[in-house]
Amino acid sequence: MSPVQTRLESLEQLRLRLREFVAERDWEQFHSPKNLAMALAVECAELVELFQWLTEEQSAGLDAGRRARAEAELADILVYLVRIADRLDVDLLEAASRKLGENSRKYPAARVRGKALKYDEYD
Amino acid sequence: MSPVQTRLESLEQLRLRLREFVAERDWEQFHSPKNLAMALAVECAELVELFQWLTEEQSAGLDAGRRARAEAELADILVYLVRIADRLDVDLLEAASRKLGENSRKYPAARVRGKALKYDEYD
Amino acid sequence: MSPVQTRLESLEQLRLRLREFVAERDWEQFHSPKNLAMALAVECAELVELFQWLTEEQSAGLDAGRRARAEAELADILVYLVRIADRLDVDLLEAASRKLGENSRKYPAARVRGKALKYDEYD
Amino acid sequence: MSPVQTRLESLEQLRLRLREFVAERDWEQFHSPKNLAMALAVECAELVELFQWLTEEQSAGLDAGRRARAEAELADILVYLVRIADRLDVDLLEAASRKLGENSRKYPAARVRGKALKYDEYD
Repeated sequence: MSPVQTRLESLEQLRLRLREFVAERDWEQFHSPKNLAMALAVECAELVELFQWLTEEQSAGLDAGRRARAEAELADILVYLVRIADRLDVDLLEAASRKLGENSRKYPAARVRGKALKYDEYD
Repeated sequence: MSPVQTRLESLEQLRLRLREFVAERDWEQFHSPKNLAMALAVECAELVELFQWLTEEQSAGLDAGRRARAEAELADILVYLVRIADRLDVDLLEAASRKLGENSRKYPAARVRGKALKYDEYD
Repeated sequence: MSPVQTRLESLEQLRLRLREFVAERDWEQFHSPKNLAMALAVECAELVELFQWLTEEQSAGLDAGRRARAEAELADILVYLVRIADRLDVDLLEAASRKLGENSRKYPAARVRGKALKYDEYD
Repeated sequence: MSPVQTRLESLEQLRLRLREFVAERDWEQFHSPKNLAMALAVECAELVELFQWLTEEQSAGLDAGRRARAEAELADILVYLVRIADRLDVDLLEAASRKLGENSRKYPAARVRGKALKYDEYD
C-alpha cells in the first residue's frame, strides 16, 4: 500500500489536479469523451472481476488484499468519472442532487419498500 | 430537465443522503458490494452507449439532448460509486489521492509525454 | 416473441448473413473494431442488468418474461461478437479451440477442483 | 501463440466440451447465470481496453501482438456466452435467427441507409 499523499479535500480539487496531470503529459488528445467513457467502463469491469466468483456475503467481507484492490479500482473509477465530467462541463454534485430528487419521486418509499424493481415495473 | 434540488456540497454529504435514501426503502438487502458493482458497470455501459456510434469529435460536441442524457448517466455512476465505497468503508478522496501519487511515479511526464501506453509498455 | 426465422445453421452462415445486413444499410462505416467492441460491451451490460438485483438462485430460475429478455440479449451479444471477429479476421471456433487447450493446461482438474481462483493464485 | 487444438466444428460441440471442462473441475457451483453474466462483461471490457486509446482507424489495423490479444479475448467471450446460454437453455443460433428477423423489420434498408440511430430515433 502506498503512502497517502496529501489528501485531496473535494471533487473540485481533484478535477483541477487531474487537469494538471493530463496537461503535463500532453494527454488531452486521448481524452475525448468517447475514449474516457471506454476507460471508465474498463475500470468498472476490473471492480466487477473482484466479485464475480464470490457470493454476496463474501463480497461484503473482503480480506485485506482484495479490499486494497477494490479501493484502487474505486479510485480509478472516480478519476475517470471526474475527467469525463470535466470534458463535458458537467457539475457532478449538481447532477447527483438533481438525480436524487428524481429518484425520490420515481421511487416513493411507501410504494417500493423492500422491493427491487425498475420504476415502471411497480404496479 | 428537472429542477435542481438544493445542491449537495460534498461527497460526504452525498454519502449520508444516499444512506438515508436506501434505509427509507429497506434496500440495504440488495446493496451487497457484488450487486452494486454490477449496477455501476451497467450505468457505465449506458454512458458508453451514448458514444458508441459517434466519432471522437462528435463525442466532444454533444447536442443538448445527448448532453442531458450524459449528465444523468454520470449522476447514476457517481451515486453507485459512492454507495459501494460506503459499503466497503473506502474514503474515495483519500483513495484518489493515493492513486494520483502512484500514477505520478508510474508515468513521469518527461517519459510519457504524448504517448498512450500502459506503464509496462514504455521502453 | 417473434416467429423464428429459418434457423441459421452455423456461425459461418451467421457471419455471411450479417455482412449482407450491414452492406445493405451502408453501416460498414460505423463498424470499426473499436465501435463494435463498445457495442458488444453495452449488450453484455444489458444482460448483467437483468441479474443485478437477483440472487444467484433466482438467476437460475427466471420467469418467462425475463428469460425471453435474456435470450434477446444473448442474441445481440452473439451478433456483435461475430461482426467484430469478422472485421478482425478471427475464426471464432478456432480461437475457442486454442483457448480451451490453454485453459486445460492452466487449470489442471486435479489442482483446481471446486476452487474459483485465477491461475496465478493457486499455490 | 499456442498450437491450435483440434478445431471444434460447431457451437454445439463447444457447448458439450465446455460442460465436460466445468464438470471435471466441479465448477458448476460457480456458474450461476448471474456470475457468468459478470464474467462475460469482464471479458468484453478486456477487449474494449485494447481499443480505448486507439483511433477507429488504428483499431482496424492492429499489429500482430494486439491482434493475438484480441483473438484471445474474443475466445473468452465466446466461451462464457456459450456457457450462459447453456445454463439458460437458450439455442444461440435460433435466438440470433429470430433477432435478425426483428432487426430487418425495425431497420428497413431504404430508411436507415448510412445512418446510425436507434430504431425509435428515425423520423
